[in-house]
Amino acid sequence: MNVFAYPEPLAELVMALARLPGIGPKTAGRLAFYLLRHEEAALKLASAAERAVREITECEICGNYTDVQPCRVCSAPNRDAALLCVVEQPRDIASLEKTGEFSGYYHVLGGVLSPLDGIGPDRLNIASLLRRLSGVREVVLALNPTVEGEATASYLSSLLKPRGTAVSRLAHGLPVGGDLEYADEVTIARALEGRRRL
Amino acid sequence: MNVFAYPEPLAELVMALARLPGIGPKTAGRLAFYLLRHEEAALKLASAAERAVREITECEICGNYTDVQPCRVCSAPNRDAALLCVVEQPRDIASLEKTGEFSGYYHVLGGVLSPLDGIGPDRLNIASLLRRLSGVREVVLALNPTVEGEATASYLSSLLKPRGTAVSRLAHGLPVGGDLEYADEVTIARALEGRRRL
Repeated sequence: MNVFAYPEPLAELVMALARLPGIGPKTAGRLAFYLLRHEEAALKLASAAERAVREITECEICGNYTDVQPCRVCSAPNRDAALLCVVEQPRDIASLEKTGEFSGYYHVLGGVLSPLDGIGPDRLNIASLLRRLSGVREVVLALNPTVEGEATASYLSSLLKPRGTAVSRLAHGLPVGGDLEYADEVTIARALEGRRRL
Repeated sequence: MNVFAYPEPLAELVMALARLPGIGPKTAGRLAFYLLRHEEAALKLASAAERAVREITECEICGNYTDVQPCRVCSAPNRDAALLCVVEQPRDIASLEKTGEFSGYYHVLGGVLSPLDGIGPDRLNIASLLRRLSGVREVVLALNPTVEGEATASYLSSLLKPRGTAVSRLAHGLPVGGDLEYADEVTIARALEGRRRL
């Protein structure tokens, strides 16, 4: 976008907004003008961003984003300590918690193996995962169904199984509300493979 | 969205982001997690928003957003002082400047007449517009082609014409790259009405 006509502080705001994922330069311009018209919203956004950076840290135990140590999930007494769910990112914990279906604890891997990007096992929170296994009956791998996610799941499985822990992963299949017509072949093949008797 | 699982500073950031136009709660969550993973981008956004609010004001002459008084357009010596273009919002100036086709000065109305929202002529920068007419040959009304925009244009026209100023508005017609099939009847009717001989 052409920002030459914008005064410098406005151009700077447009550029800061355009760095956000999914926000193109045109949307960034629209948001910047909105913020100038709504100063209170702009100052609220600024203070919220600063406060989040200042107060949110990673949980020392699981790696979740938290404002207390350990995080509220890790310090909850009524969860099942025999179940440990491995996720890629802290936001995945929020997605799983919203289902209300998982009663165990979490472990944030901090990404997936990606040799092309130079991300090997030492760059992920694997050592801390292995230190958490005592008393864990089952590790649920809730990694994204991508090539890297699958490869990481295989790698973790090969590390975990010899230690006597059961390892599972989330089911693949048709998304609820989805349509066979729009599902890709691999998803349909996995859904067939994992079919359940009624 | 369910933010109960988020620590308070993160929930506050999600809510501040969700106030932006076109950003729903789900996108706000995604952006908030992005900002936590990219602290530098978060702090940059915070400081840019604060700086913009602090340094950007409305130009005393035209109402454009600016960091100097008067704004860079109003202080440009090589523009045509006989042409004055009236726009609703400062961002409209940027849209027009990008065309490179307008050589006059601008005047920001700050909105359009909207009796239902209690916005009458006294809420718009009309008095300051009337004070700027000396030496102006033509006022171009570049208001949005909405019902309120058209009504405001008529009102302004009735004020300006008796003062001996020519008044024009932007042409209506098919957008360039548009398709007759997808144009509404009113647009096509206006395009016919405004047809040009080749």
